[in-house]
Amino acid sequence: MSERIRNSILASKLMSAEQAAEIIRDGMVVGMSGFTGAGYPKVVPAALAARIGEAHGRGDRFSLNVLTGASTAPELDGELARVDGIGFRLPFNTDPTMRAKINKGEAEYMDVHLGHVAQQAWSGFYGKMDVAVIEVTTILEDGRLVPSTSIGNNKTWLDIADKVIIEVNSQQPLGLDGMHDIYFGTALPPHRKPILLTAPGDRIGEPYLRVDPAKVVAVVESNAPDRLGHFTPPDAISKKIAGHLVEFFRHEIRHGRLPPDLLPLQSGVGNVANAVLSGLREGGFTGLTSFTEVIQDGMLELLSDDTITIASATALSLSPEAVQEFVDRIDHYRSRVLLRPQEISNHAELIRRLGCLGINGMVEGDLYGNINSTHVAGTSIINGIGGSGDFARNGSLSCFVTPSVAKGGAISCIVPMVSHVDHTEHDVAILVTEQGLADLRGLSPKQRARTIIEHCAHPDYRPMLQDYFQRALQDSRGKHTPHLLGEALSWHQRFLETGSMRA
Amino acid sequence: MSERIRNSILASKLMSAEQAAEIIRDGMVVGMSGFTGAGYPKVVPAALAARIGEAHGRGDRFSLNVLTGASTAPELDGELARVDGIGFRLPFNTDPTMRAKINKGEAEYMDVHLGHVAQQAWSGFYGKMDVAVIEVTTILEDGRLVPSTSIGNNKTWLDIADKVIIEVNSQQPLGLDGMHDIYFGTALPPHRKPILLTAPGDRIGEPYLRVDPAKVVAVVESNAPDRLGHFTPPDAISKKIAGHLVEFFRHEIRHGRLPPDLLPLQSGVGNVANAVLSGLREGGFTGLTSFTEVIQDGMLELLSDDTITIASATALSLSPEAVQEFVDRIDHYRSRVLLRPQEISNHAELIRRLGCLGINGMVEGDLYGNINSTHVAGTSIINGIGGSGDFARNGSLSCFVTPSVAKGGAISCIVPMVSHVDHTEHDVAILVTEQGLADLRGLSPKQRARTIIEHCAHPDYRPMLQDYFQRALQDSRGKHTPHLLGEALSWHQRFLETGSMRA
Repeated sequence: MSERIRNSILASKLMSAEQAAEIIRDGMVVGMSGFTGAGYPKVVPAALAARIGEAHGRGDRFSLNVLTGASTAPELDGELARVDGIGFRLPFNTDPTMRAKINKGEAEYMDVHLGHVAQQAWSGFYGKMDVAVIEVTTILEDGRLVPSTSIGNNKTWLDIADKVIIEVNSQQPLGLDGMHDIYFGTALPPHRKPILLTAPGDRIGEPYLRVDPAKVVAVVESNAPDRLGHFTPPDAISKKIAGHLVEFFRHEIRHGRLPPDLLPLQSGVGNVANAVLSGLREGGFTGLTSFTEVIQDGMLELLSDDTITIASATALSLSPEAVQEFVDRIDHYRSRVLLRPQEISNHAELIRRLGCLGINGMVEGDLYGNINSTHVAGTSIINGIGGSGDFARNGSLSCFVTPSVAKGGAISCIVPMVSHVDHTEHDVAILVTEQGLADLRGLSPKQRARTIIEHCAHPDYRPMLQDYFQRALQDSRGKHTPHLLGEALSWHQRFLETGSMRA
Repeated sequence: MSERIRNSILASKLMSAEQAAEIIRDGMVVGMSGFTGAGYPKVVPAALAARIGEAHGRGDRFSLNVLTGASTAPELDGELARVDGIGFRLPFNTDPTMRAKINKGEAEYMDVHLGHVAQQAWSGFYGKMDVAVIEVTTILEDGRLVPSTSIGNNKTWLDIADKVIIEVNSQQPLGLDGMHDIYFGTALPPHRKPILLTAPGDRIGEPYLRVDPAKVVAVVESNAPDRLGHFTPPDAISKKIAGHLVEFFRHEIRHGRLPPDLLPLQSGVGNVANAVLSGLREGGFTGLTSFTEVIQDGMLELLSDDTITIASATALSLSPEAVQEFVDRIDHYRSRVLLRPQEISNHAELIRRLGCLGINGMVEGDLYGNINSTHVAGTSIINGIGGSGDFARNGSLSCFVTPSVAKGGAISCIVPMVSHVDHTEHDVAILVTEQGLADLRGLSPKQRARTIIEHCAHPDYRPMLQDYFQRALQDSRGKHTPHLLGEALSWHQRFLETGSMRA
């Protein structure tokens, strides 16, 4: 037995990725590990893709329903999508090959709140799960599993799948051991109990995943890092957005509406999120906490000097450089990082109790504060809603951020009516672009419109928005949420026809 | 002192409604009691309206921000709206006079999840509250208050208002004493603790509201019933909708996805909701529970014979006949009815834990399962989102129901794209019309569209929907959520222009 596979029963199931892939057959529902490009299986999906490609070469049907935690990487979604191996996918995807298949109508995709996936799968919304493929760091003597860089839905997949394939990845740091907190107290109603977590750093579970050894049909070794890109420092636009938000937080603290150490931060992924974190650090904030989905480089930096003292998430998605820093100072980070199942990191009960400050990116927002987080021009999915809805709905302050324009100014990210709604007017408190911040709390739709145009719209589009709003005020049948229905989506239509929203 | 005003300090503040109304001045933020036409103040609003009318007659400004639990009655919203006394209103309204003002653009309205109002008010989203006007049944010797037929946001208004006016309504049944459960454990983050309720009938609080006597500036006597209409028995269409839903519940029970006594029911108001409850009773269900917002006649009927054994809500909105039944058998109902603050009845944590079955009406739904609960043709508000979002998002099964057509068939309630989104594709599991039930669980957008057209659309509109969907499949830029943006809202536009959605 190797250092990483210490249980003899499971060690006896060691086989190649190709052998393991043979367990998976056409039409199966397969749950895989992986969240924000971290902790996904590295070798079975490729072997599976090869099998599928061969089957298709013979003219055989071979298509899977693939469920994950969230996004994976080219080795999983990319490989499987390339051979048309995924017929149905949920709950989140960022892989370009997979995305293209979905938007061509060649694969079906369901976009689910990340905090809802486990309970829905468990309740049978997605059918019986045939096989789970889960990456781990180590198999312990007693058969328990040390998770790798993400937990996602792994606990649930291990529970509900008929068969389990375990990938043991020898590149995942052994130092991860002890950083996970797997809560085994969830249940389906009517058997649910309160989840007794009251601070982001509370430990409520155990560090290891459990699996019924009888269900494990294969153990496969892998040796590859999570394929995560290098960190890009925030650009000028992102820094401006961050600046507005940090200024707003200061303002709220001054007025006693936020504590000096804020409330547990949830922050989406990407450049703006990183800029906000940097901005908090530069702004002299300290002793902050985070209750979020993913720890990226930006947050690790804040953890390095205790700007953030505790970060709870379900995935650790670090660049190669940050992985090195993480490993080098593992004892520092072990007491500051907690990885949980995504049903816990994104749980309505906990987000509501902690009063998380949700900061999420968006594709576009409209005059009335409705947010599109997922679709280009209403029809093509980009990634998915992810956990933004879990936090926007149940947190105490829901902030959405975006540059005011995209594609060199051809697209206004503030439009008369969003082409797809992921977050409704009821769920959006703060809207920020590099132009400024619109505080929508306590405002009616028309008041929101005026504030958003004034503070968030790009100057190039402000007169067009003003014009639309004024004419809508004049001619709309109802004047609670004034709209010209024949024109509300015309900006998107114009973009599709001319490549620009400009009149 | 009267039987109903037993505290000497508060008794000393007894005055007329007219005197009390003088405490309220232009520009004030006023929190009033009232939820679904139950437990609203009966006499101060009218006296206030008279003052406002006089002020306007003199050319003086007099406009209030009025916050309630939910809807009130003509004596409150109607009277105040008639004299243009409400400049800003939240979080819900059903009064026709008030609605007309809002839709003419003469009053601002903010539509808020009913479960979010208390925390947002407390957090300062709506500004400082100047005065609260709260109806109660009795003032006890020690100054605590026996609530009347609704609790709504009364606890919060009593906490945060600078001044308090209490209306003691001698028509509210004394038997209500002991039926309320006021939870005093809520807090703003980071001070929140788990709320230890695990079943709809759990008592976690006290039967009485508390108020600082020093803040009470007036006690006013009233003597009028809640003005609630007579009960209308379910019509044929509603019965069909109910039939589909009851059949679905049976199907889920057979497959082990729902327990035989279901899960705590949340049911919106109105004819369809009542039909569903009747349908459950006729279908032989028994021992059910309800964790909902409002108890109407339909639910009282089920409580009368233990079809439902416990009902938790924030309001008791009964017809005059049902009030009589309630009073006649008060001991029966006292052990079966619990009234809570709406921050508890609609609390994310509790709805999630209990796994409520949410059954809510809608204005229209679209091919992809997005729901409009609030707006006519995207611009005129009807009532508001109420608590539907609290339950649709955080419950375990989110059902939306509507007749397939409205206005004698001139409107299809299934449209290509809804004109306003209150519940997104992520939050809708089951869609029901009298035509049938669409089970959207685990379906991609295109799969949802096919199911909704087949099962829910009215036959008169089915070919039009099919035609739109087919052309969208063909011509849509992205084929994840196929749409023709230039045509997506054309059905509404046609309705506005011709009075019908028919081509």
